[in-house]
Amino acid sequence: MRKTKKVNYEGPSLKVIPLGGLEQIGLNITAFEYGDSIVVVDCGLSFPDDDMLGIDLVIPDITYLRENAERVQGIVITHGHEDHIGALPYVLRELNIPIYATRLTMGLIENKLKEHELLESTKRKVIKFGQSVNLGQFRIEFIKTNHSIVDAAALAIHSPAGTVIHTGDFKVDYTPVFGEAIDLQRFAELGKKGVLALMCDSTNAERKGFTQSERTVGHAFDTIFHEHQGSRLIIATFASNVDRVQQIINSAHKYGRKVVVEGRSMVNIIETAINLGCISIPENTLVEIDRLKDYPDDRTVIITTGSQGENMAALSRMASGMHRKVIIGPNDTVIFSSNPIPGNEKAVTKVINELEIKGAEVIFQDVHVSGHACQEEIKLIYTLVQPRYAIPVHGEYKHRKAQAEIAMELGIPKENVLMLSSGDVLELTEESAAVTGQVQVGAILVDGLSVGDVGNVVLRDRQHLAEDGILIVVVALDGVTGHVVSGPDLVSRGFVYVKESDELMDEARDLMEKVMEANVARGCTDWGRIKTSIKDSLGDFIWKKTKRRPMILPIIMET
Amino acid sequence: MRKTKKVNYEGPSLKVIPLGGLEQIGLNITAFEYGDSIVVVDCGLSFPDDDMLGIDLVIPDITYLRENAERVQGIVITHGHEDHIGALPYVLRELNIPIYATRLTMGLIENKLKEHELLESTKRKVIKFGQSVNLGQFRIEFIKTNHSIVDAAALAIHSPAGTVIHTGDFKVDYTPVFGEAIDLQRFAELGKKGVLALMCDSTNAERKGFTQSERTVGHAFDTIFHEHQGSRLIIATFASNVDRVQQIINSAHKYGRKVVVEGRSMVNIIETAINLGCISIPENTLVEIDRLKDYPDDRTVIITTGSQGENMAALSRMASGMHRKVIIGPNDTVIFSSNPIPGNEKAVTKVINELEIKGAEVIFQDVHVSGHACQEEIKLIYTLVQPRYAIPVHGEYKHRKAQAEIAMELGIPKENVLMLSSGDVLELTEESAAVTGQVQVGAILVDGLSVGDVGNVVLRDRQHLAEDGILIVVVALDGVTGHVVSGPDLVSRGFVYVKESDELMDEARDLMEKVMEANVARGCTDWGRIKTSIKDSLGDFIWKKTKRRPMILPIIMET
Repeated sequence: MRKTKKVNYEGPSLKVIPLGGLEQIGLNITAFEYGDSIVVVDCGLSFPDDDMLGIDLVIPDITYLRENAERVQGIVITHGHEDHIGALPYVLRELNIPIYATRLTMGLIENKLKEHELLESTKRKVIKFGQSVNLGQFRIEFIKTNHSIVDAAALAIHSPAGTVIHTGDFKVDYTPVFGEAIDLQRFAELGKKGVLALMCDSTNAERKGFTQSERTVGHAFDTIFHEHQGSRLIIATFASNVDRVQQIINSAHKYGRKVVVEGRSMVNIIETAINLGCISIPENTLVEIDRLKDYPDDRTVIITTGSQGENMAALSRMASGMHRKVIIGPNDTVIFSSNPIPGNEKAVTKVINELEIKGAEVIFQDVHVSGHACQEEIKLIYTLVQPRYAIPVHGEYKHRKAQAEIAMELGIPKENVLMLSSGDVLELTEESAAVTGQVQVGAILVDGLSVGDVGNVVLRDRQHLAEDGILIVVVALDGVTGHVVSGPDLVSRGFVYVKESDELMDEARDLMEKVMEANVARGCTDWGRIKTSIKDSLGDFIWKKTKRRPMILPIIMET
Repeated sequence: MRKTKKVNYEGPSLKVIPLGGLEQIGLNITAFEYGDSIVVVDCGLSFPDDDMLGIDLVIPDITYLRENAERVQGIVITHGHEDHIGALPYVLRELNIPIYATRLTMGLIENKLKEHELLESTKRKVIKFGQSVNLGQFRIEFIKTNHSIVDAAALAIHSPAGTVIHTGDFKVDYTPVFGEAIDLQRFAELGKKGVLALMCDSTNAERKGFTQSERTVGHAFDTIFHEHQGSRLIIATFASNVDRVQQIINSAHKYGRKVVVEGRSMVNIIETAINLGCISIPENTLVEIDRLKDYPDDRTVIITTGSQGENMAALSRMASGMHRKVIIGPNDTVIFSSNPIPGNEKAVTKVINELEIKGAEVIFQDVHVSGHACQEEIKLIYTLVQPRYAIPVHGEYKHRKAQAEIAMELGIPKENVLMLSSGDVLELTEESAAVTGQVQVGAILVDGLSVGDVGNVVLRDRQHLAEDGILIVVVALDGVTGHVVSGPDLVSRGFVYVKESDELMDEARDLMEKVMEANVARGCTDWGRIKTSIKDSLGDFIWKKTKRRPMILPIIMET
């Protein structure tokens, strides 16, 4: 959209290296590199895909940062959601680098560092909106935005090669619940001065129009409180949406109800928000869950986690009758102040059914707004910033592609709209933009305490075990003669319920005996070959009889 | 909604027994019982939930029918979808009872019976709309409806105790693509005569308004064909939606494109529809996939399965580059003529991303209409039929509950709106409706060839194996002395990648040696106790070191 102007700049180019987040949603981490300085933006984790069996978390591979550790100046964080801060403890364990973030964002990071015993060892600085921090050859400026969490920031990343604006996750909210509206004037001012590239949130780029203000949800709450004065209210929302909780508390106060906050993650975040003054709660409004019984149902409201149908969250436990303090009944109205995140639809529906079977009324429409910019907001930011290059970020390929279309519609030439993949090294100057290399990236799986020791082999085995179980053949051989001294014994788990299939197992054992006799007769003492003969013959037999392929594991013992 | 009128009927009540389908969606099967006669309506299967690892299909428990086999007169089928006919082969293997269905429905059933070698042994009768079949004390009348498959029927189940109307899955389509509109006059006529109960489809009972005619999708196709004259078109839809395929063929013919049908299930169904005259295809329009290369891209359209992102379906294989004949590129426009079924959203999105990364344009909005009645259609049927009792069927609890609200809004007294659970024995007369008993129901899991031998124990084991894998400890003991003659050896699968954790496994082996030494020292020869000591000590050790709980399986061999 900008007219090309001649520039005299002849220094090095600015490198933009997404280290994750473009394929595996959530692993948001981007390196910006100029000369000897590297600055990292965000450090998120993601939750495992359905095929990552047994995995707890996924974090980004930071080999590139590790190999260039001495050049890394700091990590700058846009906002406090898990997909932007969650991997910090894992990264900080390897790289001791300072963190820069706004107030609530830093509060949430500190909770996390405490838990991982990293608080003392990590240098941290809280940055105010409008302030900048100098990191090597970079100056990073924090710009106020709006999002579904308080204190979200966009970043202006100033380098000698030019300025990149990274929006983080954002929306335009002219009437936010807490704090100011997005600092559109600063976006305009920077645009006027010249912005090299805009990295803009694509999450809602397929949606027409404008995302509604968070305040509209407050009006919806008022209506619900007004219309349900006889029943207890239970409202599920995202633990980190402090503004949402603020609005529920406002309605509760207006209608004279006590508020209980339930669910560990929400309790933690609200505590932090209270300490930092990001939420204001009238006296005597909050009560502990144990005091719930002291008030009549129509004088209470429970704010709870579990709006995504998460198995162990408070709402799911209430719905399934497993919650120790809250028993759902016909006098309850349960409100989902959230939309299901793709993949969670079935889990959410299950919880709704369970609640309705227990007699509760369930409200799950029009009590939520998104935290991300729709098409008109994206156009607004582009029009204020007028970047030379567009680099759509945050979102699946189809979302980023939709933003690319918008950018071109606004007049950015096709060759200046850059669809990156994780690991791409994008070199930018006013005159050119090109992917000039690749760095190692990937998703590291966290399972229990261990990081990275569960890889494809283990996952493939888990998948196999999950599908058809395991059939173990143990046989003890005489170390000298190679004769069978015990077994073959068969043990199965997750295959078939054994009592029902004694005959099958008996036949399999007979077959294994024959196979071992044949091995002995052939004088075969090569354990590898014996194992292969067991696997092949038993595998064929089981497939023919059952059309299943359990994992077959031969174990030979030498006595 | 009907005024109570005095009746002189004093015979037995009519029993309605849902044998599935109300909790596990898909297992649609209902028994109607009067005196010595039982008639079964539908016989569906469902697909496994996420936690049913390795399971292929789920079918209903028909213990009740088996125990009353001599009284079962026949199975009457409303339409040919899997959730209404899929379990027939499994049920017919146990109970040889005749089947009654309309033409295409029977065609699809026959395909299924052929595959299971049950065609010869099964008595079948094709019924026309308006016709009835006498089954014991019942007369079952087939009434024309509309749905997303041709030849769908509602049933009027006439018994001496009164008439029940079962809508099956339906919508009201005044301008269907094939055949007539729903026979609203007959619904009205029956209503006028007096209907005891209405069992009505609840799937869309939460949706306001009226489901659009299938023909609107035809108009959408025309527009797409018009606007994409330069590119190849690939259209994914449900294999059984013959009308949808008809409309694509109509547009293709109009715009001079050859049509390829791809995907085994779709090819089968379209062949059956052609044979039965349910679809009309202009000559020289259909071509084999191998001839695709003989035509330019802009002269072809591929109709394919995989609209739900199913892993092995044709479209998914095209998207991931695994399809042998179709390579996706920038000259392709891929149309999803479907909505994701709840639970499939993520899989569909994955396919869309893959297609867009390969450069294809993807259209996935406004090219589909539902096959189920929305609120206004449900109200229409209730108003025509004016039943004494409302029994919402088809749909999750929240959908059936939404229909219950509609029924009450229309004036049916609350006590006459009956929310059943599977297994309930509902006894109906003009004067009363009451659940008077329970029969055995449940979901039988089908895994490979076997039916019912995978139960909770096996599933729990698979879940455990999937989460953290298995750690096997084998030790050979001297049968006389009880001393260790070989091992303990440790083998793991799906736990950790062993090379990365040699130290852990070494320590575990040392621990096991100590445990066995202690057992020997104590003179313990009780294998159960030895196994318990192995499990406990190894379990604790692994949990402390890794925060994981693999399945621990001790195997003791006696030599």
